[in-house]
Amino acid sequence: MAEKITPRSESYSDWYVDIVLNAKLADYSPVKGCMVIRPRGYALWEAIQSNLDKMFKATGHSNAYFPMLIPESFLKKEAEHVEGFSPELAVVTHAGGSELEEPLVLRPTSETIIWSMYKKWIQSYRDLPLLLNQWANVIRWEKRTRMFLRTTEFLWQEGHTAHETSEEAEEETIKMLNVYKEFAEGILAVPVLTGVKSQSEKFAGAINTYAIEAMMQDKKALQAGTSHFLGQNFAKAFDVTFQTREGKLDYVWASSWGVSTRLIGALIMTHSDDKGLVLPPKVAPQDAVLIPIYKAKNKDEVLDYADSIYKILAEKFRIVKDYDDTNSPGWKYSEWEMCGMPVRIEVGPRDMENRKAVLVRRDSGEKIFVEFDKISDTLDEILKDMQVALLEKARAYREENTFEINNYDEFLKFFNEGEGGFAESLWCGSGECEAKIKEATKATIRVLPFDRQENIEGTCVCCNKKAKNLAIFAKSY
Amino acid sequence: MAEKITPRSESYSDWYVDIVLNAKLADYSPVKGCMVIRPRGYALWEAIQSNLDKMFKATGHSNAYFPMLIPESFLKKEAEHVEGFSPELAVVTHAGGSELEEPLVLRPTSETIIWSMYKKWIQSYRDLPLLLNQWANVIRWEKRTRMFLRTTEFLWQEGHTAHETSEEAEEETIKMLNVYKEFAEGILAVPVLTGVKSQSEKFAGAINTYAIEAMMQDKKALQAGTSHFLGQNFAKAFDVTFQTREGKLDYVWASSWGVSTRLIGALIMTHSDDKGLVLPPKVAPQDAVLIPIYKAKNKDEVLDYADSIYKILAEKFRIVKDYDDTNSPGWKYSEWEMCGMPVRIEVGPRDMENRKAVLVRRDSGEKIFVEFDKISDTLDEILKDMQVALLEKARAYREENTFEINNYDEFLKFFNEGEGGFAESLWCGSGECEAKIKEATKATIRVLPFDRQENIEGTCVCCNKKAKNLAIFAKSY
Repeated sequence: MAEKITPRSESYSDWYVDIVLNAKLADYSPVKGCMVIRPRGYALWEAIQSNLDKMFKATGHSNAYFPMLIPESFLKKEAEHVEGFSPELAVVTHAGGSELEEPLVLRPTSETIIWSMYKKWIQSYRDLPLLLNQWANVIRWEKRTRMFLRTTEFLWQEGHTAHETSEEAEEETIKMLNVYKEFAEGILAVPVLTGVKSQSEKFAGAINTYAIEAMMQDKKALQAGTSHFLGQNFAKAFDVTFQTREGKLDYVWASSWGVSTRLIGALIMTHSDDKGLVLPPKVAPQDAVLIPIYKAKNKDEVLDYADSIYKILAEKFRIVKDYDDTNSPGWKYSEWEMCGMPVRIEVGPRDMENRKAVLVRRDSGEKIFVEFDKISDTLDEILKDMQVALLEKARAYREENTFEINNYDEFLKFFNEGEGGFAESLWCGSGECEAKIKEATKATIRVLPFDRQENIEGTCVCCNKKAKNLAIFAKSY
Repeated sequence: MAEKITPRSESYSDWYVDIVLNAKLADYSPVKGCMVIRPRGYALWEAIQSNLDKMFKATGHSNAYFPMLIPESFLKKEAEHVEGFSPELAVVTHAGGSELEEPLVLRPTSETIIWSMYKKWIQSYRDLPLLLNQWANVIRWEKRTRMFLRTTEFLWQEGHTAHETSEEAEEETIKMLNVYKEFAEGILAVPVLTGVKSQSEKFAGAINTYAIEAMMQDKKALQAGTSHFLGQNFAKAFDVTFQTREGKLDYVWASSWGVSTRLIGALIMTHSDDKGLVLPPKVAPQDAVLIPIYKAKNKDEVLDYADSIYKILAEKFRIVKDYDDTNSPGWKYSEWEMCGMPVRIEVGPRDMENRKAVLVRRDSGEKIFVEFDKISDTLDEILKDMQVALLEKARAYREENTFEINNYDEFLKFFNEGEGGFAESLWCGSGECEAKIKEATKATIRVLPFDRQENIEGTCVCCNKKAKNLAIFAKSY
């Protein structure tokens, strides 16, 4: 199988598609812009869901489910929201054999339908905070699609919270951004920068959008999750007021936040190589594959020995036995490398004689020869080490490809002639400079990183006026 | 809160709606026919999902995800299928600001989109069996809707399997029906009959539909899950052939099977009472609520004592502390009864002095006075006993309300004048008699129960010709 993958050096985007198709993560569907998520891809989504769901519940959130069909008029109630989403809407005009009185749009996101219900449920400060999340499919009619990264239909979670005060809503916004960071780094081993988006890049209807932003292997940025402080925008659009502790009436304060199947794209483009998928053990559906190597004359003995290893490992790990006679060991190695199995355990006649096994790490390819009694402990160590190593490798890669650039000629050269990466540059805060830079380089402000906004001294990389922020510029997905 | 519930004796359907709204399981939405599933209702769906998902995986199935938008032409490829679903379709005609070349329907079920992919994935017997399941939302434009039981959008799982032989596909169909029965009875404590549907009641596009069928408290039947043997119908419609072990080409054999959020309706209407929801412990989100009863003078001591109970119980059970000062104990009792909390633990000053507690069972209302050291064991026993007792009670109710009726006058009287229930009656097998009965009584054949089709002797309850089957007739949801 491995020969089917285009090397990254040749074409990163072909390589990406080859990985998705050959590792059987997803497939093209007959519906334009929609993909089919195959079992191996869906298993990654299940791992993402179960980990995040626990984190959401531990921070006090409950799951609910709201209709996917939204009256068209609802979208129009928040001016920026409708402007942002109108071009992407899919519209149901007919149902049950007749034309609908009012068209229904397929949710591109659920603020409007949810806030129409919050009006019903929230009367008093005693009803707050209201901390709901929904796992759902959404539809955004995209012109150019790419499996997992941008598809017409995608799966996601969307949190929608309602609060008494602006401070509390902002605190929630940041809290959930940090949950995303913890998850991305701790489980997916994808290092992310956190910060606020510029006004031109924010969610349509938000006061501020915060994001986790990762660097892919081609040095482009990928927005991997967003958390929005919505102020009172949706409360005002849907007239959601509450009686305050002081007995007054005020509009409710809001946040919303989401991550999607796009995270699977981030996972692929952070860790994988020319042999196929590389998965951090915490998100991999299995830990290791056991592959016996034998001839007809010693088949039974080798399989017995392999079974004895399986028996010990299966108590603690998720092990797949690949005893299939119709494929050669070499073919199996390639196939499991393609699928991102974290560790391969080879057991041949000589291993049997020496009561050993060979453990092969997917990330480094390192072969480790281990005594029978130490296989379980060694596997445990490898998995733990691999989880950490993948994160560190990705972080080092990002750091190697992040440059402080405060000269506009250098900046233009970096994005237009060089290999690109993240530029840390000073910015005056104006939309004009941002637009000019985008026009000249296709690079945008990914985030204004939280921890880098103090004591800003210097001038804007573009206009040379006094700088307000340090911004991360990059080309992005 | 309890006073808001209409008694069942007054109006069973009003009672049902009162339970759904007051226990905050769901709410009406602004979109016609669609409901909002609130956190307490969604928690039940999560319990259903996690239990069933384990059972599906244990029987070799994997999850995947297919697009919710289906080209209209796909539905038309299977003649019965399009006839059955056409009246219920919602259609997207516009997207991304322009009219679509081909309208897209929102999936009412996914056979067509899935079999269009199976054509791509299946070439040989080595690709079979293919055992996929999908957790998804579906849309069926229903004229009359009722929360959980029949809504325009609902959540469900749909299994779609592909096999080499007819026998294997039928075996799968029955296997999954039995999984549903085991789940319904073992987890939901809802006793079900299993059997085959008559041809007039089968799924549009199936050879045979099998169902699990339950009796609600108003003696009506509820179809709680179906499993379809699809023969080669969809393989032929989508031209899905495979190379057999003998080197020939044959069409693939299929099954599909599904249960939905309707199960929550079954749960409510099987166990609940005029005080509110009653939940079997295995599906309840929590096991017990701890309610301290105190006056200002002994508050601290009582709460300390309650805490000492909480500490022990929390190790093993899912316990909610309700220490809220703003509500009286009596109000709390009603509220938690409404929500279906399996056990209430009351702790007052006298209990504290005697180092006891009072455990109150939700199903029977029985109060059990327990020594401190035995609270944990007693709670465990109550929960186990309640799980069994609810199933037995429901089964006894169904048996009490099931009658052998083989005289047509009696049959008409039973459904038109009596209290109704399940009629076990002999049937000649003709669609005419079935239609005549439906016209005269509104009762339909719910299933031909598996274990009752041998040695049929006698005549059809309707036409008096020789009987072929024993059928369960009932009015249904």
